[in-house]
Amino acid sequence: MFIRNCWYVVAWDYEIPDDGLFARTVLNEPLLLFRKADGTVVALEDRCCHRLAPLSMGRKEGDCVRCGYHGLKFDGQGHCVEIPGLASVPARARVRSYPVVTRNRWVFVWMGAPERADPALLPDNFSCDHPDWQHVPGYLHYDTSYLLICDNLLDFSHLSYVHAQTLGGSDEIAHARPTIEPIPRGIKVSRRVHDVPSPAYHAPMRTSDGNVDRWFVYDFVLPGTLLMDSGARPVEDAPDDLSRALRFHSCQTLTPETEHSTHYFFQEAHRTGMGDGTLARTMHEGLLVAFEEDRRMITAQARMIARSPGVSMLPLAMDAALVRFRRIVDEAIAAERD
Amino acid sequence: MFIRNCWYVVAWDYEIPDDGLFARTVLNEPLLLFRKADGTVVALEDRCCHRLAPLSMGRKEGDCVRCGYHGLKFDGQGHCVEIPGLASVPARARVRSYPVVTRNRWVFVWMGAPERADPALLPDNFSCDHPDWQHVPGYLHYDTSYLLICDNLLDFSHLSYVHAQTLGGSDEIAHARPTIEPIPRGIKVSRRVHDVPSPAYHAPMRTSDGNVDRWFVYDFVLPGTLLMDSGARPVEDAPDDLSRALRFHSCQTLTPETEHSTHYFFQEAHRTGMGDGTLARTMHEGLLVAFEEDRRMITAQARMIARSPGVSMLPLAMDAALVRFRRIVDEAIAAERD
Amino acid sequence: MFIRNCWYVVAWDYEIPDDGLFARTVLNEPLLLFRKADGTVVALEDRCCHRLAPLSMGRKEGDCVRCGYHGLKFDGQGHCVEIPGLASVPARARVRSYPVVTRNRWVFVWMGAPERADPALLPDNFSCDHPDWQHVPGYLHYDTSYLLICDNLLDFSHLSYVHAQTLGGSDEIAHARPTIEPIPRGIKVSRRVHDVPSPAYHAPMRTSDGNVDRWFVYDFVLPGTLLMDSGARPVEDAPDDLSRALRFHSCQTLTPETEHSTHYFFQEAHRTGMGDGTLARTMHEGLLVAFEEDRRMITAQARMIARSPGVSMLPLAMDAALVRFRRIVDEAIAAERD
Repeated sequence: MFIRNCWYVVAWDYEIPDDGLFARTVLNEPLLLFRKADGTVVALEDRCCHRLAPLSMGRKEGDCVRCGYHGLKFDGQGHCVEIPGLASVPARARVRSYPVVTRNRWVFVWMGAPERADPALLPDNFSCDHPDWQHVPGYLHYDTSYLLICDNLLDFSHLSYVHAQTLGGSDEIAHARPTIEPIPRGIKVSRRVHDVPSPAYHAPMRTSDGNVDRWFVYDFVLPGTLLMDSGARPVEDAPDDLSRALRFHSCQTLTPETEHSTHYFFQEAHRTGMGDGTLARTMHEGLLVAFEEDRRMITAQARMIARSPGVSMLPLAMDAALVRFRRIVDEAIAAERD
Repeated sequence: MFIRNCWYVVAWDYEIPDDGLFARTVLNEPLLLFRKADGTVVALEDRCCHRLAPLSMGRKEGDCVRCGYHGLKFDGQGHCVEIPGLASVPARARVRSYPVVTRNRWVFVWMGAPERADPALLPDNFSCDHPDWQHVPGYLHYDTSYLLICDNLLDFSHLSYVHAQTLGGSDEIAHARPTIEPIPRGIKVSRRVHDVPSPAYHAPMRTSDGNVDRWFVYDFVLPGTLLMDSGARPVEDAPDDLSRALRFHSCQTLTPETEHSTHYFFQEAHRTGMGDGTLARTMHEGLLVAFEEDRRMITAQARMIARSPGVSMLPLAMDAALVRFRRIVDEAIAAERD
Repeated sequence: MFIRNCWYVVAWDYEIPDDGLFARTVLNEPLLLFRKADGTVVALEDRCCHRLAPLSMGRKEGDCVRCGYHGLKFDGQGHCVEIPGLASVPARARVRSYPVVTRNRWVFVWMGAPERADPALLPDNFSCDHPDWQHVPGYLHYDTSYLLICDNLLDFSHLSYVHAQTLGGSDEIAHARPTIEPIPRGIKVSRRVHDVPSPAYHAPMRTSDGNVDRWFVYDFVLPGTLLMDSGARPVEDAPDDLSRALRFHSCQTLTPETEHSTHYFFQEAHRTGMGDGTLARTMHEGLLVAFEEDRRMITAQARMIARSPGVSMLPLAMDAALVRFRRIVDEAIAAERD
């Protein structure tokens, strides 16, 4: 069961070619994406209404797509406009179309009732396309439910253990207690750690040799999007002195592919002017190593859960944020059912 | 659910060695095939009655097979004739045997009641072994139901799209309307197209540079066998002048392996004397490329159907032949149930 | 359904490192094994009570293990002794621990009620660690139920067919009738064959060129352990003259991993002083070839059984031992249920 009346990121804009067809499954539904001549992206059901062949195996013809099996042609609204050998097209010959918005390089589709699609619900992923911020776009595929990855992102105590050699570097991250505040459609989590060693991830850009204060402040909102301000500052600098601080903005979002698999779109941006022109790439590569640590752990956890029917988890204080967010998800699903 | 009282092709005759055992599953049943000393083929249940080991992992001994696990020996009728360490053999020690006929290089097994096996129901696959016709035998395995492949073969409009670069070469094939006539246990489909470019498949044997008239006339009969007369003729030649015509005869048949997988035996023969000695091989290689185009599409369609419970197909005029044939299949299954 | 109140071999002792974590599934339960500083082996549930992550993905800290996800630390009894960020540990924070005994290089775990763990139920696997006997330890993984492998080990008539080129070498093994006697928790099987060719397996150590008498005398006890005295003697030697006899002792045991997969631990030892220093290795390699013959056959049998619902086996005289043992297993399971 998924929340439907949401914008879900279906792709980075660079993934959808100017010419050609792009297929991706979202919420168990097969989607076909392509660009019209004016560059805007179209999202259609990737399943011909005739014999259910994937339209993505056909070909683009202008602003339309032609099925590669028997040649039915559909326009950008999903209406069939030609059937080879037939003089007229039955009204039932159509496939579903989905509202699409591209904002800051993320391509969003609205998976619910089209008339309820509301641009005000788009997340503020500004750092994905902003002159003050530099990043390299990232994508990972998970063979687990998106909820386990939400859990992971809502409890950064795992940085001390999963990411001991990469993003973490100190048990103090796990010992710190975050503050958790409600925000619209989500929660804000703030975690600050004082006087800890710099993590390996910061090595390429360190501005001092000593310990640092670190902060992680993020909104986590439906359907599963993290928008985070984070950084590190030499512990010896005055509290209001950010001159030697490392400052990052990260946008990450989880889109269910199926009940048991997930698309993960992410980037962590640094301030323009920090480091040389290779820093964004270096950070991206460091992030991939760390996110692979997560994926390995979460995939093993998912397998263990699957083989452990009747075994329940033990709620602990550190689960406060993830428990709250799971409740927000459940309420949203329940609200749609009514 | 399968039709049982049918001859199914289980192998090309060259697949079954003079000495040795050959295993293949048909209608979910494991079959063992081997040749007796006189060359005739025996088909037995490939499952020892003792502990259910596959007999095909044993060894041939004369006209018998000995199980490779505990040594039970079975004759060509499936009767156990020896059990090591036992003085006598219980009457229940036997495996099922199946009627077998080899005709024109196709090895047929009768999967229904043995006493109903009727050679009159064998298809006329003459071009598989005829001095006037040359071919190379083909086999493909499909991970889909045989019915989706029947559908494919019963609507050649797909030649214009699936095979645009191989067998097709013109949208006119999809625009042409075939005639469909009932025949015993099947239907006859005739499709003629006028004044179209020669397809890439004909390139190695073209007899003129211009457009051609093409015809595809085939019987499609239970359980899933296509017997086709097809060809192409320079459009400028007189209607009764076949001197420059390319003429083919094709035999193709589908044997369900399981509900979700299929054996596909096929050949397309050219007239003896056409081209040089390599033409049959060249045509076979062209056919493999084209049939791989089908397999890719049909396999994708099958996956899409499997993940789309509750999504129905939209019947269109071009489905007339396949709808009729599916009805013939359903009636045959219903008749056997009664 | 498994027998629980049993010692199951979970590993050869050399498999469990002095430092580090070792994971293996037994009876569908994920186990974590590691050594304490004193060398004794600990067996814990390999599933953190918090979020069900495998503890084997964490790290050993002294005689404890720390979860690699959020850092919970467990002692050798499975009690959580530290939760990062929490002042106190809830009593419910624990994982299951299992009684462990290492005897003669086999590491046993007790999968039933801990208070019922009884060392008297350990099998006498003396030749796994005895100065008079030399061997190389063996392990195979099976993708079948352990019961099919028990069946195999309880009817050596298969040596004549499965192992014709390795351990067998004569149909006489299948023709011989074993004696079968009840023993506590199992049965004793004795099979003697007279005046047969020496098997290929004996080639590296033959003491004569002629035929031999062979014997296979073994206990087969719950949960699935074979303890065998076997050998071969030149047929021309006097009955009480063992001077040229080849004598072996073999310990083999089957531990269910899941309902459909099995751990197989085995060795066949020769008398110290027989052959040169390489004989144990040579025998081990011969055994691996033969046991691969079994695995191939039993795996094929298991697949055939799985695809043959409603098809029953035909009981024959040679099944006497395995039928009895299956009854002993069923009775043990029934007794635990009551």
